[in-house]
Amino acid sequence: MTTVEEAEKLVLAQTRDYGTESLPFGQALGYVLAEDLKADRDLPPFNRVTMDGIAIKYAAIENGIQVFRVKATQAAGDEPVQIDEAGECIEIMTGAVLPFSVDTVIRYEDVKISDRIATLYTTDIKKGQNLHLQGVDKKQNDVIATSGQLVSPAIISVAASVGKTHLLVKKMPRVVVISSGDELVDVHETPLPYQIRKSNSYTVKAVLKLHYIDADILHIPDEPAVTREQIQYCLNNYDVLLLSGGISMGKFDYIPQALEELKVEKLFHKVAQRPGKPFWFGRHNTGALVFAFPGNPVATFMCLHRYFLLWLNATLGLPLKPPTYAVLGKDFVFQPALQYYLQVKLQSNEQGRLIAMPVEVNGSGDFANLADTEAFLQLPLERNEFKAGEVFKVWKFNHD
Amino acid sequence: MTTVEEAEKLVLAQTRDYGTESLPFGQALGYVLAEDLKADRDLPPFNRVTMDGIAIKYAAIENGIQVFRVKATQAAGDEPVQIDEAGECIEIMTGAVLPFSVDTVIRYEDVKISDRIATLYTTDIKKGQNLHLQGVDKKQNDVIATSGQLVSPAIISVAASVGKTHLLVKKMPRVVVISSGDELVDVHETPLPYQIRKSNSYTVKAVLKLHYIDADILHIPDEPAVTREQIQYCLNNYDVLLLSGGISMGKFDYIPQALEELKVEKLFHKVAQRPGKPFWFGRHNTGALVFAFPGNPVATFMCLHRYFLLWLNATLGLPLKPPTYAVLGKDFVFQPALQYYLQVKLQSNEQGRLIAMPVEVNGSGDFANLADTEAFLQLPLERNEFKAGEVFKVWKFNHD
Repeated sequence: MTTVEEAEKLVLAQTRDYGTESLPFGQALGYVLAEDLKADRDLPPFNRVTMDGIAIKYAAIENGIQVFRVKATQAAGDEPVQIDEAGECIEIMTGAVLPFSVDTVIRYEDVKISDRIATLYTTDIKKGQNLHLQGVDKKQNDVIATSGQLVSPAIISVAASVGKTHLLVKKMPRVVVISSGDELVDVHETPLPYQIRKSNSYTVKAVLKLHYIDADILHIPDEPAVTREQIQYCLNNYDVLLLSGGISMGKFDYIPQALEELKVEKLFHKVAQRPGKPFWFGRHNTGALVFAFPGNPVATFMCLHRYFLLWLNATLGLPLKPPTYAVLGKDFVFQPALQYYLQVKLQSNEQGRLIAMPVEVNGSGDFANLADTEAFLQLPLERNEFKAGEVFKVWKFNHD
Repeated sequence: MTTVEEAEKLVLAQTRDYGTESLPFGQALGYVLAEDLKADRDLPPFNRVTMDGIAIKYAAIENGIQVFRVKATQAAGDEPVQIDEAGECIEIMTGAVLPFSVDTVIRYEDVKISDRIATLYTTDIKKGQNLHLQGVDKKQNDVIATSGQLVSPAIISVAASVGKTHLLVKKMPRVVVISSGDELVDVHETPLPYQIRKSNSYTVKAVLKLHYIDADILHIPDEPAVTREQIQYCLNNYDVLLLSGGISMGKFDYIPQALEELKVEKLFHKVAQRPGKPFWFGRHNTGALVFAFPGNPVATFMCLHRYFLLWLNATLGLPLKPPTYAVLGKDFVFQPALQYYLQVKLQSNEQGRLIAMPVEVNGSGDFANLADTEAFLQLPLERNEFKAGEVFKVWKFNHD
């Protein structure tokens, strides 16, 4: 059976490049930059006043001047106004350009202004104080954000500041989430006693939405011809087919047969893990990839986070996320020779350690307790007993 | 000056109830449930087969029977088919209802089927194996998700499973993000040397989008009458006014004056913190709240996460998030008598500890380095020196 490490390697060998697109910068949140963002001018673009008050020439202070005539008032956004002699000052506002004839700003709190005469309250004045000098943060043409960075709110800020109304970003894959099986009815229907409602597809779609992918949903009935035709359509029109269920040895699972007939190359089937052992992964010569997860909702959830999102991250050219580690909060035993992904809740303690407490599960796809689960703790294949206090890798969901 | 703790308390004393709305369940992702979700029937709703194979009556095994006639085949979603005698079996698929005349499932791997005769390969059979029994996960009417829970993908799954096509959720506040100042030009414009582009509003809007709030954006020019009129409009039409800049002592900051004239009650102004010292917070008798953050982009970012999102969390009735702690990765000194929020990058180490490494900043609202920042480490007010290895509370952004 394929190990988790082999499966991960095989999945990561199938990263794709779906090209780029240009989006209005506000809509690019969550996408990945496909261009560097450069400063279109120095940052700050001018010697910027950082306090409301008066601007003077420091030499005046050195010459003992403590009282200044207010020559003019200059707001942020105004053209700079110059003084003509040392005994003058400009009343000046935060964000204003420092006029070249002055070099120091004294804040309102340290000045009394009356009848256009400013008298200093303080002698504690440093030359050049209360200024944010031109180019201190970045020089014109400096790269501020690089291709391959995730567009976060901070990157939105950068884009706005340098006048990038549109951002070139990596295109997301076109994804279709496929369910199958005649036992499934729609959410608005009342199932007969032997039927259940579709739910996995909606869960997968929701997880993808958190990662800025707007996936389509398709249900395939248990009919060989229809199955084949619909899978064919998906292979031609999507980059990724995410299947949930329909890949077991069941007599009415027409999907493996359709995948074979349509020449989807199997890269692996069955991984030495729980949940998610029947995970099937393959590729088609259209370039399309097929992630076929087991129907068990917890297995689908785990495989989606453990494999698909890892692949997505690599495909978009994001740097590999360094692993997160957590401390097992309670002894745990798991006998089968499978790598176990333990459903856990996470808690930070006052030593700055992340504690993973096992969530009680019924073991058979009890999706209700997924709502209490924040991550999967990855327990090594080669052992069966895990002690409280041991540290393992943890796969977190990015929703909190 | 107001301390951070007092400011937090004053903000949290102003939580509001904006009522509820009903959303199609797939669109409710990220909202907060305003109703309990109950199982509409037992979960699983029937004794559910968990392996493809044959279903038999265990008594037959006890009586030494190893060969069974396949009476019929039953797929998931089929009505159950019964056997008539102990020597018969039903070929049965994962997800199918267990017929009442049988009680045990033997998987295909342990059976040879030829000419409708099934011969067992194994004697290791347990009564009731490969079944997920009715009601084991939840009983009909059990509460599966409770009012006040965040709608995660797992809750979407629950909703679909129990047939909730619409979910009652807490309404989000109507938020307007307001910038001001004639020195600001639009993103698509080329600023004159003494102008800069608007960026803070877009950053704030992006952070709110990550929290499922679709905020409006408004720019107010430096004109007293217009300022007053527009603030008045916002107080009447929004629940929250988030201002960035325009609240200093500047001669052309018409906003404080407008807020006073419009009788917005000041709850505090200036907090003993950096960044974000000039933070102003007030309420109007319309119920509207005014969070007025300093114009410095880093200060706005910090106050938004530290105060507004905390308020939002409480307003939506979410449980208070337990604090996250991180280990300072490097000695740090901060002299002013202010609570310092240090910009940090976070990293998990192999002991399961979260390490916070300071991001180098220029100290004056250098937004470019915000892109490298993942959290603010909260350094206590009463000290000036902080040693590597010490643990402090950390305020993370929820974007990764």
